[in-house]
Amino acid sequence: MIIVLKDGHENIIDEIKSRFTETNEVFVHNNRVAIQGVSEDDLNAEEKNTIDLIIDNVPAAVQGSRLFHPEDTIVTTPHSQIGGDNFTMMAGPCSVESAEHVMKMAKVAKSGGATVLRGGAFKPRTSPYSFQGLGEDGLKFLRAAADAYDMDVLTEVMDQDHVAMVEQYTDIFQIGARNMQNFSLLKAVGKTQTPVMLKRGMSATIDDILNAAEYIAAGGNHNIIITERGIRTFDNKYTRNTLDVGAVPVLQKLTHYPVILDPSHAAGHTEFVTPEALAGAAVGASGLVVEIHDDPAHAFSDGAQALKPDEYRAMAQQAFAIRQVITTPIQEKSEVKL
Amino acid sequence: MIIVLKDGHENIIDEIKSRFTETNEVFVHNNRVAIQGVSEDDLNAEEKNTIDLIIDNVPAAVQGSRLFHPEDTIVTTPHSQIGGDNFTMMAGPCSVESAEHVMKMAKVAKSGGATVLRGGAFKPRTSPYSFQGLGEDGLKFLRAAADAYDMDVLTEVMDQDHVAMVEQYTDIFQIGARNMQNFSLLKAVGKTQTPVMLKRGMSATIDDILNAAEYIAAGGNHNIIITERGIRTFDNKYTRNTLDVGAVPVLQKLTHYPVILDPSHAAGHTEFVTPEALAGAAVGASGLVVEIHDDPAHAFSDGAQALKPDEYRAMAQQAFAIRQVITTPIQEKSEVKL
Amino acid sequence: MIIVLKDGHENIIDEIKSRFTETNEVFVHNNRVAIQGVSEDDLNAEEKNTIDLIIDNVPAAVQGSRLFHPEDTIVTTPHSQIGGDNFTMMAGPCSVESAEHVMKMAKVAKSGGATVLRGGAFKPRTSPYSFQGLGEDGLKFLRAAADAYDMDVLTEVMDQDHVAMVEQYTDIFQIGARNMQNFSLLKAVGKTQTPVMLKRGMSATIDDILNAAEYIAAGGNHNIIITERGIRTFDNKYTRNTLDVGAVPVLQKLTHYPVILDPSHAAGHTEFVTPEALAGAAVGASGLVVEIHDDPAHAFSDGAQALKPDEYRAMAQQAFAIRQVITTPIQEKSEVKL
Amino acid sequence: MIIVLKDGHENIIDEIKSRFTETNEVFVHNNRVAIQGVSEDDLNAEEKNTIDLIIDNVPAAVQGSRLFHPEDTIVTTPHSQIGGDNFTMMAGPCSVESAEHVMKMAKVAKSGGATVLRGGAFKPRTSPYSFQGLGEDGLKFLRAAADAYDMDVLTEVMDQDHVAMVEQYTDIFQIGARNMQNFSLLKAVGKTQTPVMLKRGMSATIDDILNAAEYIAAGGNHNIIITERGIRTFDNKYTRNTLDVGAVPVLQKLTHYPVILDPSHAAGHTEFVTPEALAGAAVGASGLVVEIHDDPAHAFSDGAQALKPDEYRAMAQQAFAIRQVITTPIQEKSEVKL
Repeated sequence: MIIVLKDGHENIIDEIKSRFTETNEVFVHNNRVAIQGVSEDDLNAEEKNTIDLIIDNVPAAVQGSRLFHPEDTIVTTPHSQIGGDNFTMMAGPCSVESAEHVMKMAKVAKSGGATVLRGGAFKPRTSPYSFQGLGEDGLKFLRAAADAYDMDVLTEVMDQDHVAMVEQYTDIFQIGARNMQNFSLLKAVGKTQTPVMLKRGMSATIDDILNAAEYIAAGGNHNIIITERGIRTFDNKYTRNTLDVGAVPVLQKLTHYPVILDPSHAAGHTEFVTPEALAGAAVGASGLVVEIHDDPAHAFSDGAQALKPDEYRAMAQQAFAIRQVITTPIQEKSEVKL
Repeated sequence: MIIVLKDGHENIIDEIKSRFTETNEVFVHNNRVAIQGVSEDDLNAEEKNTIDLIIDNVPAAVQGSRLFHPEDTIVTTPHSQIGGDNFTMMAGPCSVESAEHVMKMAKVAKSGGATVLRGGAFKPRTSPYSFQGLGEDGLKFLRAAADAYDMDVLTEVMDQDHVAMVEQYTDIFQIGARNMQNFSLLKAVGKTQTPVMLKRGMSATIDDILNAAEYIAAGGNHNIIITERGIRTFDNKYTRNTLDVGAVPVLQKLTHYPVILDPSHAAGHTEFVTPEALAGAAVGASGLVVEIHDDPAHAFSDGAQALKPDEYRAMAQQAFAIRQVITTPIQEKSEVKL
Repeated sequence: MIIVLKDGHENIIDEIKSRFTETNEVFVHNNRVAIQGVSEDDLNAEEKNTIDLIIDNVPAAVQGSRLFHPEDTIVTTPHSQIGGDNFTMMAGPCSVESAEHVMKMAKVAKSGGATVLRGGAFKPRTSPYSFQGLGEDGLKFLRAAADAYDMDVLTEVMDQDHVAMVEQYTDIFQIGARNMQNFSLLKAVGKTQTPVMLKRGMSATIDDILNAAEYIAAGGNHNIIITERGIRTFDNKYTRNTLDVGAVPVLQKLTHYPVILDPSHAAGHTEFVTPEALAGAAVGASGLVVEIHDDPAHAFSDGAQALKPDEYRAMAQQAFAIRQVITTPIQEKSEVKL
Repeated sequence: MIIVLKDGHENIIDEIKSRFTETNEVFVHNNRVAIQGVSEDDLNAEEKNTIDLIIDNVPAAVQGSRLFHPEDTIVTTPHSQIGGDNFTMMAGPCSVESAEHVMKMAKVAKSGGATVLRGGAFKPRTSPYSFQGLGEDGLKFLRAAADAYDMDVLTEVMDQDHVAMVEQYTDIFQIGARNMQNFSLLKAVGKTQTPVMLKRGMSATIDDILNAAEYIAAGGNHNIIITERGIRTFDNKYTRNTLDVGAVPVLQKLTHYPVILDPSHAAGHTEFVTPEALAGAAVGASGLVVEIHDDPAHAFSDGAQALKPDEYRAMAQQAFAIRQVITTPIQEKSEVKL
């Protein structure tokens, strides 16, 4: 149950909190108090008096819910404001390959309007014998490249024991699709205040994502970004995954966290990345995270889905233009009126 | 195998055709000849001499393939050119409800830029006890409404025995998702020259769609439009289906038929129809087909997913604007060059 | 709503029927009357007096529901009793290939305990250029083979205009997975009294199957057999489809029609057909329908999934033995009691 | 590439190993040597001379492959031999609830023939606010209960930092479906020699499972058991997941590790657990792992899918009987021969 207090009754919050905290989860946001496992009948007369509205049927992932927190969360990093009216471009190589290469890719990323540089130093590979990333060295190269171009760093943390170390280098943790329900890892990043980009698992439902995000929020970290990156369906002959663009407005309705879209892992093949990226801009995502490479054929990982610099800049230009289209108020032309 | 003849050797086509026709399927398009079940070794020396290129690994659905027919097919109806550089809006009520209502909806459809009026007179309903449509009367009302506003008619034919009757009223047959592999029905519309809009089955792969289209083409009807309308996946709690926007560029690469997108059946809820429609415009679809209703709560069918007139016009305006963005050549700004 | 009349009040059925028939669907089974769109409040005092029980929340597919028809339906053919305590083996080639071949296959089928001979004369092929079956000639060969071994014929009807013709040769119509929601075809077989084996569509939910069966029942034909044959999921690298064994007990709970299982189309590869068939016997299916061939490498269709004669007989022997295990009352041994 | 040495040439193994080890992964099993990234051309003349067979197209997960290790792996624990001709019953409560309760459940498990007692002390719950397990206390209760009835302990480890602690209490680690691709956790258990039961992820392909198992094997732990527990598909209205029985024979063909089946999480509802368990026995699984509870309505977790003691024993009796049917050589009766 969420109770919305009447104006001027916020002073009662501490009382309510202390009354229920021992036996129930209690969360407060402005004049809203969420109390789990409690119904209207559990409130006393005085409390009922202070209440403007009672919301039942609250999802388990209450802290992430719009019912509890109606306004958009804006995740703030040194170089970006993610969410709300902003449209954030995040780009970079799949893997950090060398200090020089990631520096070059940072320049490309920046040239397309990106404010966040992505790059993997610890890679979750399907096979244990595939390239597993450069590790901490990679993080150093990535940080240097981002700094050189005044960008934020976004990089994956796969291991709860690496959280403190990775945090030294990154502005945003990425939790990968395979770890979306690695609850120990979610709890570990939940204990920091560094923003977390949580990627949707391959077969995660909308509710699963929101509950995974709640594991982070439950630890006290509310700087959460949710990323749609394609789901597993019955047909992956021509694309690696099925981009679920509909998940973007659905999530935006249910949660206040910014929702961005990763067309690279969804498409899996360069030729389909740009159309899917533009679909993401049109559907209203708060940003895009894309993989770029100047020589995809020799990329250390996932070259098949990397945009080349020119392709990336062309995509970015169109994506920003589409963002403008959908955020410009509709001009109701007189002749179209009935 | 497809053979591409050298310029000036088209005169040999009839010879090749007659040599293989009895035992193999042979198809000709300009200077290309597709012969099924034949390899280079089956050609004689003279034939080999006339050939510019041999394409192996041709899909079974050869007539629909870009390898056989590289140029876009433009499907021409009295009021629309579908495919190529065009962007076609198709709109109307889910069911034709009455002469008056469909007339009103035609006016709305037209006001948003639609050139095609959709409406169901024969409805494929999950339950035998649900409203099954007005039948031929509905077709008459639909035709009158389209004529009043200089629009084309698009309507579903569910029954092979109705093809001739429905053809009297429609400019485009719709084959619904449930009938995508109703081969008798595909053969029946394949014998006409009326354009056919083929909707993707709920779990049809890309190859399944192309093979279904080939059933129509095999009958001699090449006026085919393919429609992505959402697929069935593991999560349908918040949307009715999962819109597979990636299918649009994939299909456009593989086939020359125009590909359009139906956001209404994908989203299933009004609030998600516009974002999904815009994603469809951005991903490069050749048009949209959307359901509209002035009083969704009392629609005879699928009211939950109908756009109201104002919502529809706002969506259409943005969709056309997005189409313009993606078809405008990129302005490579000097400062973004590396 | 379903009303269950008190003993001795069956005489009121005609009255109720006549009162609601004009405006609502009314169905009667023994002392149960299902009336759609009506609630307890619509009954008059006299009617309420005669009622033992009122069942709300009745599914749309009411005639197929156990709530309306609690006892098992036994589908009776000249040589088989399908459903209830019986376990029916159905076997035969994918396609009828010749009079001689199907005769040979009938002998094999019989030798494994089959009482139904399956064989396709009209084949729904993904590509229009694949072998489409021998047509009516194939039906004649199939009938002759079944007659020679005192078996029933099971064969697919794909086209509503063929129903009367196919009915002359078959004891059971098969409706294929691709036509599960071809409502015109369902209505056509629903007007006959010949048993119908309805195969689950590739992505049909349990409710979809029951509604499709209801189209047949709505026409007056209640001789329905439902077949689970594998569904489409994200992994079909090693099997053609994913056999959903759980669907068998789920369907048996919800409907009174017999439920059988087709391991051949699910597995898609001979080596996995027998384990899946045995799983079907163990999960409680009322029978199996399997494809057999003496020379799978040269089968006209689907050779990869055909069991050879010896494999088939071994499978059948184990399947009957497993059926016996699950239908034998449990021997509660004293030492396992707590 | 896998090379199979001729008899008597095993002495060359160390030479080959030392020649490639620095640059390639090299694995040896009896007279087989797998070398990744190497082809026949990389062998010298002497080496070629010693080779009986070269196997190309080896999967990345080579140590788990039958091509590399043709014989069944038998996982040996104090009270069980898992794999090969054995059929192992594993049963217990979803969560360890108290010392008394798990002791009672151990008695029930044993009475049905189980040699492994399962129970969760650390629970991966979708919501952070759900019961998360009793932790190390739970492990102590579980161990005591198993010891009292001479059974093995099977329990989930969710956190790489708990591996050493959990190992003190368990005979078999369980890796849950959500952690199937938590590579840090897989590496952690791969460094132990304690058997690992790896559950299939909700949308893991067969190849994904084998690659996940390879992460464990790559660390040196080859005591691996794979568990099919239902996958996520488009229909979960009546069952929690879709049990993929076909995965059992597929995995048994591809890998030498034992494959067992968990009907409880697949079915999700008690009434469907027994049929799915029997299907698992019939399809050839090396064992079953099932949840039991004496008072499901008050279970701490997943009560809806727990078998009651009597249901469990009845199921177990039938499962063992079915196992006997499928492992008894076929009696080819003379009359069924053609």
